[in-house]
Amino acid sequence: MPVNLTPPVAAQLLPVAGVSLGVAEANIKRPNRKDLLVMQLCEGARVAGVFTRNHFCAAPVIVAREHLAQPDGIRALLVNTGNANAGTGEQGLRDARTTCAALAGLLGCKAAQILPFSTGVIMEILPVARIAAGLPGAVANMRADNWFDAAQAIMTTDIVAKAISRQVLIDGVLITITGIAKGSGMIHPNMATMLGYIATDAAIAQPQLQAMVSEAANRSFNCITVDGDTSTNDALMLIATGKSALPEVKAADSKAYKALLAAISEVATWLAQAIVRDGEGATKFITVRVEGGKDEAECKQIGYAIARSPLVKTAFFASDPNLGRILAAIGYAGIDDLDVAALELYLDEVLVAEHGGRAASYREEDGQRVMQQSDITIRVVLNRGTAHARLWTCDFSYDYVKINASYRS
Amino acid sequence: MPVNLTPPVAAQLLPVAGVSLGVAEANIKRPNRKDLLVMQLCEGARVAGVFTRNHFCAAPVIVAREHLAQPDGIRALLVNTGNANAGTGEQGLRDARTTCAALAGLLGCKAAQILPFSTGVIMEILPVARIAAGLPGAVANMRADNWFDAAQAIMTTDIVAKAISRQVLIDGVLITITGIAKGSGMIHPNMATMLGYIATDAAIAQPQLQAMVSEAANRSFNCITVDGDTSTNDALMLIATGKSALPEVKAADSKAYKALLAAISEVATWLAQAIVRDGEGATKFITVRVEGGKDEAECKQIGYAIARSPLVKTAFFASDPNLGRILAAIGYAGIDDLDVAALELYLDEVLVAEHGGRAASYREEDGQRVMQQSDITIRVVLNRGTAHARLWTCDFSYDYVKINASYRS
Repeated sequence: MPVNLTPPVAAQLLPVAGVSLGVAEANIKRPNRKDLLVMQLCEGARVAGVFTRNHFCAAPVIVAREHLAQPDGIRALLVNTGNANAGTGEQGLRDARTTCAALAGLLGCKAAQILPFSTGVIMEILPVARIAAGLPGAVANMRADNWFDAAQAIMTTDIVAKAISRQVLIDGVLITITGIAKGSGMIHPNMATMLGYIATDAAIAQPQLQAMVSEAANRSFNCITVDGDTSTNDALMLIATGKSALPEVKAADSKAYKALLAAISEVATWLAQAIVRDGEGATKFITVRVEGGKDEAECKQIGYAIARSPLVKTAFFASDPNLGRILAAIGYAGIDDLDVAALELYLDEVLVAEHGGRAASYREEDGQRVMQQSDITIRVVLNRGTAHARLWTCDFSYDYVKINASYRS
Repeated sequence: MPVNLTPPVAAQLLPVAGVSLGVAEANIKRPNRKDLLVMQLCEGARVAGVFTRNHFCAAPVIVAREHLAQPDGIRALLVNTGNANAGTGEQGLRDARTTCAALAGLLGCKAAQILPFSTGVIMEILPVARIAAGLPGAVANMRADNWFDAAQAIMTTDIVAKAISRQVLIDGVLITITGIAKGSGMIHPNMATMLGYIATDAAIAQPQLQAMVSEAANRSFNCITVDGDTSTNDALMLIATGKSALPEVKAADSKAYKALLAAISEVATWLAQAIVRDGEGATKFITVRVEGGKDEAECKQIGYAIARSPLVKTAFFASDPNLGRILAAIGYAGIDDLDVAALELYLDEVLVAEHGGRAASYREEDGQRVMQQSDITIRVVLNRGTAHARLWTCDFSYDYVKINASYRS
C-alpha cells in the first residue's frame, strides 16, 4: 500500500482557467478502465516540457518534441495508458501522428497542435483504432473541473491517483496551479515511467516557461528513484494559460518568476514524492540526504548508490538496521578520493557510523526504532565541503517482484 | 535453487602439492557450522591477489594488502565467515592483526606472513576470541585433500559449495589447479561479496602471478552481477606453490604462461558462473552478450544496464517475454550517440527487435519458449564496430527479497 499517501479529494482540485479535461474508456489494454485523457488548452496557452533522456524514447516523445518546436500554439494534449508506443519503430511514429490527427479533426485545429503521450507496455503496436474510437467520448466529457478523473485516467500500476492544487498570491493576483502525475515503477531520473502535467493560469513567456519546467523537474522528478530504470516515455509538461490578470512573466530574476517557480516546484515535488510513496510494492518512504560534499554531483552520486542498492532497500523492507549495507553503497559509489573515516551516517537523528565504523554511541535498539517508521531519513555527512543533495526512494518488497513479474498478465 | 549447478564431488577435487587445508566450527555467527578455514602454504609458495575497489573496504582487505607487500613469503591464509569485519574502523584493523598473530603462533611464522579474509555481516565487531579458540582445531584438521570441506567452510548464503579442479599438460608436466569460491549476494564487479582461492603447483614469478590473477579476474569474476552491489570484502587469491617439475614461468609471452592463464581463467570462470548460478534467489542463468560495439567499454556498459535492471530481471523470473524492458535498458545505458534503429536484439537465436522496434519475424511464442529455459542468452548487436563483451547474471525473484530481508535473523 502507498506510504502515507491519501487519494486526492475531487473538490480540492482547482480548475485552471483555460484548461478543459475529458476522459474515456477506450479499451486500450483492458475494458472498464479510464485510459484516455484529452486536455484542451485555450488559444494563447503556452506549453513547455522535459522528456526522458532514454535513447529508446517512445514515438509519442519524438512527436511531442516535434510539435512543441512548430510555431502554432499547442491546443491539446492526448494521453493514453495501456500501451507505451515505445520500441515500435517507424510504425509507432505514424501511429502517434494518426492519433493527433484524429483529435485535431474533432477539435478543429492542426495535428501539429496536439501533443501525444503514451504509457504502458513497451514494444507492442498502439491500438490506434480503439484510441480514435474513444476520442469523441473524451471530447464530449471535457470540463474544467475534471482534474480528479484526469488523474485517474493516466494511472497504470499506480494504486492511488496523484493530483494537487496550490494557490499563490503574486502582486495581488491569486494564481492557481494544479498538477497531476502518474508513475510507480521504472522510476529513475531523467526521468521515470512518469507522466506529469502541471497547469497554471499565469502568463509566462516561452523561454522562461522552459527554464521553469526544467528547474522544477530538477528539484522534484529528477530526485526520485524506485528501481533505477529510466523509462522510454517520461514527460513533464508545464502549461501556462495566461488567463489570470497577472502580467506576463518574462524575466527569470523577477519576483513573480521566483514566486511562481517556488509554487510550481512545490507542486512538482509533491507529485514526485507521491510517485515514490506509491512506488511498486513500497512500504517505506526514504529520504536520502548527502551533505558536506565537494559538489552536488558527488552528493547525488552517493545518494543514488544508496537509493538504488537492492540490499539497502530489502533491509528497509525488513525494518532491519543492517546499516553496514549503506556504508558499502557509499564505498562503491565511485568517489575516488573519498575518506570513509571522515564521514558520518545518521538514520533520522541517530548517529550510526563515524571514524570508519559503528559509532560508539550507537545502540541497535535506536536503529531498530527508526527502521520501524514508515518515513525515514538516511543522512550522510561527508565533511569535505558545503554541497548537498536530497533524493527520495522507497524500499524493495516481495510485492515489487510480484507486480513486475506479472505486469503484462 | 541454484541453476544447473551440482555440488562438487570431494573425490574430484585434486590436492595441490604445497597446500594443506583445515576447517573448524568456531561458532562465529551460529553453532554447528564450519566457519573457519586455514590454508597453509609450503615455503617458497607465491601469492598474488585482486581485491574489492569499494572504498569502505574491510579491515582484512587492508591487512591482507599490507601483508602481501612485505618481503617474507606468505605461509597461510585465514578465512572466517559469519562476520565481515567491515565498517569496523580502527578496532577492525587491530582485530584482523590479532587473528593473524594467533595463527602465526600456532604455525611458527610471522603474523605478517598470514593473509586474513572475512565475509558475513558488515559493521559488527569481529569475535576475535572465538576465532582464536577455533584455530587449533583448524590447524589439527589440516590435510592436502581437504578442498571439499574448505569450500563448505567459506559459504555464507551460498546453497551449493563451489569448487573445481583442472589439470593441464604443459611442456610434458602435468599441472594441477584447484579453486574454491563463495558468494551469492552483493555481487557486482570490482568485485563481489566474493572470496575465491585458486592454487596451482606451477612455479610462477611474482610479477607474472599478479598479472595472471588480474587477467583471470577480468575474464571471470569481473563479468558477473547478481544485484549490482559491490562488496566491502571481495578477494581473489592465486597461489603458486612451485611444487611441480615445471620450470618457473617468468615471461608473459611464453607458451607456458599462456597455457596456465587459460587453465586458471577456465577455473575462475567456472567459479564465477557458479556464484551467479547460486545467486540469491536465482531461477535463471542469463548470459548477456553485446557485440558490434565501438569498444569493449560501451559493450560492458550496455551489458550491465541490462543485467542490473530489476525490471528485466523480474521479467525473466516470470518467464515473461516483456522484452521491451531490455530495449529500455539499452536506451538508458548512457551511450550518447547510440542509434537504436541500427541495433538488433536476440533471445538465444530468436530475433526480437530491429529497426527500432519489434522484428517483423518475431512471434511471441518463440520468445516465450526461450524464456521457459533455465539458461538464456540475451544478445545485442550494435552494428557500429567490432568490439564485444560478455557477462553473466541471474533473475530477480521473491526469494532474493526474502533472503535479503532476513539475512541477519
